[in-house]
Amino acid sequence: MAVSYVHMLRSATTFHKSNLSFSSYDKRRRTHTLAVQSSDSNITTDLKVDTLLESIKWDDKGLTVAIAQNVDTGAILMQGFANREAVATTISSRKATFYSRSRSSLWTKGETSNNFINVHDVFLDCDRDSLIYLGKPDGPTCHTGSETCYYTPVLDLLDEKQVEGSRSALTSLYALESTISQRKAELVGGNGKPSWTKRLLQSDKLLCSKIREEADELCQTLENNEDKSRTASEMADVLYHAMVLLALKDVKVEDVLQILRQRFSQSGIEEKRSRAPKKPEEN
Amino acid sequence: MAVSYVHMLRSATTFHKSNLSFSSYDKRRRTHTLAVQSSDSNITTDLKVDTLLESIKWDDKGLTVAIAQNVDTGAILMQGFANREAVATTISSRKATFYSRSRSSLWTKGETSNNFINVHDVFLDCDRDSLIYLGKPDGPTCHTGSETCYYTPVLDLLDEKQVEGSRSALTSLYALESTISQRKAELVGGNGKPSWTKRLLQSDKLLCSKIREEADELCQTLENNEDKSRTASEMADVLYHAMVLLALKDVKVEDVLQILRQRFSQSGIEEKRSRAPKKPEEN
Repeated sequence: MAVSYVHMLRSATTFHKSNLSFSSYDKRRRTHTLAVQSSDSNITTDLKVDTLLESIKWDDKGLTVAIAQNVDTGAILMQGFANREAVATTISSRKATFYSRSRSSLWTKGETSNNFINVHDVFLDCDRDSLIYLGKPDGPTCHTGSETCYYTPVLDLLDEKQVEGSRSALTSLYALESTISQRKAELVGGNGKPSWTKRLLQSDKLLCSKIREEADELCQTLENNEDKSRTASEMADVLYHAMVLLALKDVKVEDVLQILRQRFSQSGIEEKRSRAPKKPEEN
Repeated sequence: MAVSYVHMLRSATTFHKSNLSFSSYDKRRRTHTLAVQSSDSNITTDLKVDTLLESIKWDDKGLTVAIAQNVDTGAILMQGFANREAVATTISSRKATFYSRSRSSLWTKGETSNNFINVHDVFLDCDRDSLIYLGKPDGPTCHTGSETCYYTPVLDLLDEKQVEGSRSALTSLYALESTISQRKAELVGGNGKPSWTKRLLQSDKLLCSKIREEADELCQTLENNEDKSRTASEMADVLYHAMVLLALKDVKVEDVLQILRQRFSQSGIEEKRSRAPKKPEEN
């Protein structure tokens, strides 16, 4: 499919071979659209994709950098290179596709492992020579079975903090999730004075009283017009304690964010609320 | 400083010029460390950095891809290329440093704008040819003043959703934050039936009652041993409503995550709790 797609791109039109800026791209796009609307909408799409591909700044090997990022967690899953065909295929198939420099061939992540990266959005950078494939992976992205390819912590290795040198690149929310998960794993056979997280993990009563208390304190920062730094601090408390509950229930933050994304992409919570109010005051 | 640093790297030793794997790197590192510990710790560090640099798979131009990512939000700030000197400088200065291919020179992001990216961690991928600089930006990263360089949504342009074509690459949590912020901006002069988010923004009483209610319902999923999908759904509700409060108080999710990162990097909330308990049951 990719080959015929690119063939169409190449044969459909020849009049936008200049390296267009996006502003001129926009102007020309409208002209293109008007010109071909009456003939074939597929051709229109192909013209637009072709114009887009022309606007990308390819390197001397005809490649651009393509970074696959998890749409929910923000984790950088992998980085590869893409040629025109790889970008066109990603756009048409919505599966992250790259150009393998070692094998000199098009390569869709998941074509052998079935762990595709389902692309929801594609972003081009200001220099027009780097792309983000923002998507949802079907499973681990790395061929090693790791969630992402970035699990070698350079500074740890230099500091000799970890001999094995395996720790994934986690941003703050997921580093916290990982810490809580680690405390949960340490519960069995642990001795000495337990950490606060462990105490929360060991007592549903304590944990739930803290979640309710912190939510109440967050509200008070609004009700009592407290300083915004107080709001941020109380929200941090709410988030942390709620994440301990998530760990107890084996729920990942990613699952929660996926729910929010799905709700908002179909007119969201707002739509849900108007459709099925749970309480009278929500009407 | 960068030049003399690299000079030291080059002159310090010559015996690890092979392209080491990380496992052999670990074994040899211990030998190196023992050999030079008694002489000079700076030389030891340089040997380790040099060994690390040797283990990176540089392309035919001596470059590797370097991606700068916000440690709190996960936003991909920019992508550049790095040579040996750029990586060594990033490690020693903890400021994201690249090699400019167009200017053929070392380039530390922020050296003219003062918007440095303060690097907290560096990760190498499984192929050893791609790096993440995980850090905190001092300000907007893009030369256009945008927070990141990725603000051109390719699929929107193709779908003609947005003529201007400017929308940043936001992952789920920040897309939600942006939507709430947009609703807040629309409050002035809005007409018609307000959305649920707008109604929450317009009534502190409604919003706070919802936050307390949702926190309670989250707790109930643990107390009543409800299904984990229920927990995820209730957590989504807590997060969404709490984020509306954050928007009202002009607090960014990033600020909250920064607080959590800072707490946990100094033994965290656990340490804070053991030091200054707020309530008797926390002891």
